[in-house]
Amino acid sequence: AFSSAPITATLFPGDGIGPEIAEAVKQIFREAEVPIEWEEHYVGTEVDPRTQSFLTWESLESVRRNRVGLKGPMATPIGKGHRSLNLTLRKELNLYANVRPCYSLPGYKTLYDDVNLITIRENTEGEYSGLEHQVVRGVVESLKIITRQASLRVAEYAFHYAKAHGRERVSAIHKANIMQKTDGLFLKCCREVAEKYPEITYEEVVIDNCCMMLVKNPALFDVLVMPNLYGDIISDLCAGLIGGLGLTPSCNIGEGGIALAEAVHGSAPDIAGKNLANPTALLLSGVSMLRHLELHDKADRIQNAVLDTIAEGKYRTADLGGKSTTSDFTKAICDHL
Amino acid sequence: AFSSAPITATLFPGDGIGPEIAEAVKQIFREAEVPIEWEEHYVGTEVDPRTQSFLTWESLESVRRNRVGLKGPMATPIGKGHRSLNLTLRKELNLYANVRPCYSLPGYKTLYDDVNLITIRENTEGEYSGLEHQVVRGVVESLKIITRQASLRVAEYAFHYAKAHGRERVSAIHKANIMQKTDGLFLKCCREVAEKYPEITYEEVVIDNCCMMLVKNPALFDVLVMPNLYGDIISDLCAGLIGGLGLTPSCNIGEGGIALAEAVHGSAPDIAGKNLANPTALLLSGVSMLRHLELHDKADRIQNAVLDTIAEGKYRTADLGGKSTTSDFTKAICDHL
Ligand SMILES: CC(C)[C@H](C(=O)O)[C@@H](O)C(=O)O
Ligand SMILES: CC(C)[C@H](C(=O)O)[C@@H](O)C(=O)O
Repeated sequence: AFSSAPITATLFPGDGIGPEIAEAVKQIFREAEVPIEWEEHYVGTEVDPRTQSFLTWESLESVRRNRVGLKGPMATPIGKGHRSLNLTLRKELNLYANVRPCYSLPGYKTLYDDVNLITIRENTEGEYSGLEHQVVRGVVESLKIITRQASLRVAEYAFHYAKAHGRERVSAIHKANIMQKTDGLFLKCCREVAEKYPEITYEEVVIDNCCMMLVKNPALFDVLVMPNLYGDIISDLCAGLIGGLGLTPSCNIGEGGIALAEAVHGSAPDIAGKNLANPTALLLSGVSMLRHLELHDKADRIQNAVLDTIAEGKYRTADLGGKSTTSDFTKAICDHL
Repeated sequence: AFSSAPITATLFPGDGIGPEIAEAVKQIFREAEVPIEWEEHYVGTEVDPRTQSFLTWESLESVRRNRVGLKGPMATPIGKGHRSLNLTLRKELNLYANVRPCYSLPGYKTLYDDVNLITIRENTEGEYSGLEHQVVRGVVESLKIITRQASLRVAEYAFHYAKAHGRERVSAIHKANIMQKTDGLFLKCCREVAEKYPEITYEEVVIDNCCMMLVKNPALFDVLVMPNLYGDIISDLCAGLIGGLGLTPSCNIGEGGIALAEAVHGSAPDIAGKNLANPTALLLSGVSMLRHLELHDKADRIQNAVLDTIAEGKYRTADLGGKSTTSDFTKAICDHL
């Protein structure tokens, strides 16, 4: 591909504050002259009155065709029997790895100032199998499924990522002392892959101990790879260390190189439409998408502008303790480009 | 019972540093004139050469008869097919609730100074069922079991505890947005019990969000009740907030009022026998046991002495950044009684 030809990427602005923060991202990308053309689709909790559909074939096809996309927050449709749209997208697009870089933002003070880690979560199986049933009245069970295929796949991705990003260590997080077969298989796969990367230190950490170490000294960790639920828990814990989900990017990797970046915070219906939302998580997710496309110059430029704006502290949205509107904050980022 | 008649309690000193810290506890209890007579049994990883047993019938009977006990750390016997002794005790004694008070220690600085919460963990089922198998090569599954009986039982205990200890709020931690049937049943049981305690605020928090909130602002929480694995994770996370497992007491509650308090840290074989271990977790677990026996005066006296000693800072063991031996630290606590 010629670097001058624009790349088409799918954009799902999502629900609630989604459209506003997507607007901010588009504006900043435009200003930074990112060679991306957005193909926008509505996916969210508003149902199409004729089809009763929350998610169209065209939306899915758009990601499949473009291979890259960015999504805003989507609420789960209310009522029994509705699957979360997030989960449906993961399943339909086979988004097997969820990657969340998590680093302390310069100038934005939390209790921790030395966080710099990446959580890589298996995104398709484990406790999220959806297989549950009542055995007898008052006794229910759910199945956690671990496969060799999915475990190897996410382990491969984690080591590949670590190497490509100059990271030194991969920690596999598990509870194999209790779930010897399931988590045991996950570890076995990680070990197999680790052998192919002698330059990367490999270790195994039990999840309870990992959480304790993370709150005591997050600098102990570098890249973490883990089954679905542990990834869900630990990625949010890590987001908490640096200030919350409003600040952390996320990118889902699928088979064949698909990347769907997403803001993982909620749709915040209470402040939707009020020009108060913080676009940082979606913007940094967009940066993750750019890195996936190897547009590192643009990625650096935007990432630095948002970090500089937050560090400067003059323009911050309310969730960061400031008084800026979404548009003022966005403008400040553009000015820092 | 006459308050002057001594109570017999079982003591399992355990492995590694277990015997030293148990010695410290005995000394401090003696000094505080606690009316307890210890019935000591060896349970640990050293196998009896004649029976090949790690755990004797007499040890179990001792707890069943005395209804109260204190246990030190036990390593898991090495080799395939050995169940963790901790799990075996939980199972055999039907220890259904694991209670861990977690509060900031005055004068012992961590990043958090306002932690004061109790985690109550269902201790018998959930992800710890031990039911796992290979479906086909490369595909393994494990069963998480949630029952109405065990969920109600731990919920009852949590609300009872909250009320008895003047606590205001109980938060049920779950992932029912994904595991609707299993975690859904757990929540349903908590709601049923909550209705009987209108004076206590009841809320439900998703586990990933809970972990994020805990690291951002642990003061948001009061009493937390949850299924087994979430309890395992969150209780360790909380211990991390205040300094680690060396400082946090734990008490297991069984049917018919059995209480087996325990230090949940490891047996630290590297420092065993060197007079370096910190007896705080075992000692505070002993305090939990005293509270269970409603010996609140003695409990307060010992708890204050250990907190004062740590706050004073003159005598601290190496894990707390000091240079004291176990016996100096123990003596200092006795002096503070
Ligand atoms: C909303 C929920 C289904 C989802 C998950 O559990 O995966 C969320 O917590 C996340 O991490 O994206
Ligand atoms: C040692 C292990 C089996 C145990 C558990 O997972 O319950 C431990 O982590 C605990 O919390 O007591």
